[in-house]
Amino acid sequence: MAASKDNLPVNFGALLFPTFQALDIFGPLDALNILSRKFPLNLSVIGPSLDPISTKYRNPSLNPFNSNFGETVVPTHSVNSPPESLEVLIVPGGFGTRDDDIGPIIDFIRNNYPSLKYIITVCTGSWLAARAGILDGKRATSNKMSWAGTKEVGPNVKWVSHARWVVDGNIWTASGVAAGIDAMLAFIKEVYGEEAATHCSHVMEYEPHKDASYDPFAELHNLPRENC
Amino acid sequence: MAASKDNLPVNFGALLFPTFQALDIFGPLDALNILSRKFPLNLSVIGPSLDPISTKYRNPSLNPFNSNFGETVVPTHSVNSPPESLEVLIVPGGFGTRDDDIGPIIDFIRNNYPSLKYIITVCTGSWLAARAGILDGKRATSNKMSWAGTKEVGPNVKWVSHARWVVDGNIWTASGVAAGIDAMLAFIKEVYGEEAATHCSHVMEYEPHKDASYDPFAELHNLPRENC
Repeated sequence: MAASKDNLPVNFGALLFPTFQALDIFGPLDALNILSRKFPLNLSVIGPSLDPISTKYRNPSLNPFNSNFGETVVPTHSVNSPPESLEVLIVPGGFGTRDDDIGPIIDFIRNNYPSLKYIITVCTGSWLAARAGILDGKRATSNKMSWAGTKEVGPNVKWVSHARWVVDGNIWTASGVAAGIDAMLAFIKEVYGEEAATHCSHVMEYEPHKDASYDPFAELHNLPRENC
Repeated sequence: MAASKDNLPVNFGALLFPTFQALDIFGPLDALNILSRKFPLNLSVIGPSLDPISTKYRNPSLNPFNSNFGETVVPTHSVNSPPESLEVLIVPGGFGTRDDDIGPIIDFIRNNYPSLKYIITVCTGSWLAARAGILDGKRATSNKMSWAGTKEVGPNVKWVSHARWVVDGNIWTASGVAAGIDAMLAFIKEVYGEEAATHCSHVMEYEPHKDASYDPFAELHNLPRENC
């Protein structure tokens, strides 16, 4: 296990649940996979239980062609037996955020946020943070395709409609899916330095959006400007 | 299990091995996760065995800070007991492509390519296809950071140095990591239609590169133009 010498965050957690959106978490995590060769980093994958967690659509209405398509990830910890010393928690979105059994995931965010250095949500992961109450009074963003739902789920959140990502204090919220890669590279730049972020993006052969206010998808969905 | 009515590919496989690069496969697969709600698609995750497969660096020289960072995926099939009727095989890259125990993965590509409709490699996944012999005499590309190794591993391949992705017959090869997302969206456009590809990219909040010859990373690494 790696240990930090200079107070940089070392211990990351990925909080997963059934029917999470794969790229929401694997985009950011792959940047960190690369970073873990430059800085000491540990990852815990935290699920509702220790059972493997699939991206598959459980709700038949989401799967009209009866596809059998999904990826299954093995957690290292459960919400009931979490890792010690978690510093950065990453929360993806996906259709599973709307499921009836999401409660323990929301509780985990609520209970663990006070001791975190940072929390990073991607896509409708911000719905879970909102339902945990940690976004109340804060600026945040979310997926642009489901914006109406976003406003319902967090009535006390200062939702920013036109943003690739938003930072408020130690809370980073990214827009939909691939925006998580941009947010994570911006986070790496902020915390570990520009050289580290550039290295990750070069290895990934990815040209990140570096302007947090860039948001062609807010335009695509004709969202009104509600930048708090 | 989904079945096709109109001869479009239904049965996809992801061929994984220890120390695969996560985004190489999860970028393309997440586009397909979304597509699986519009078309009948099935996914098999194929590993060296049925043991869970981790992205972790096994070689200590790749992990100088002793990070404990990686994601672990559960295969549905092994190379020794593969799925029937595989139509599209996706092969990621990663440091594991260079490991001594990669032989059975290369053998799987060699033995199964003749019955596939398509094979899609991402990053150094093309090294495995080259070693399987299926790229001999074909145009192909690969990761740009490791280009010298690419030429060594496939001396009879017509490597294209400046390309986000290359198509030769039924073989699609993408450049490094995130280029796999662009290649997969181009593949979806080619096979399932432009509306399907646009839908996937909109859900992903991703603006794909649509010009296969766009390659800022070939420029970054000062690669000579060797476009066959």
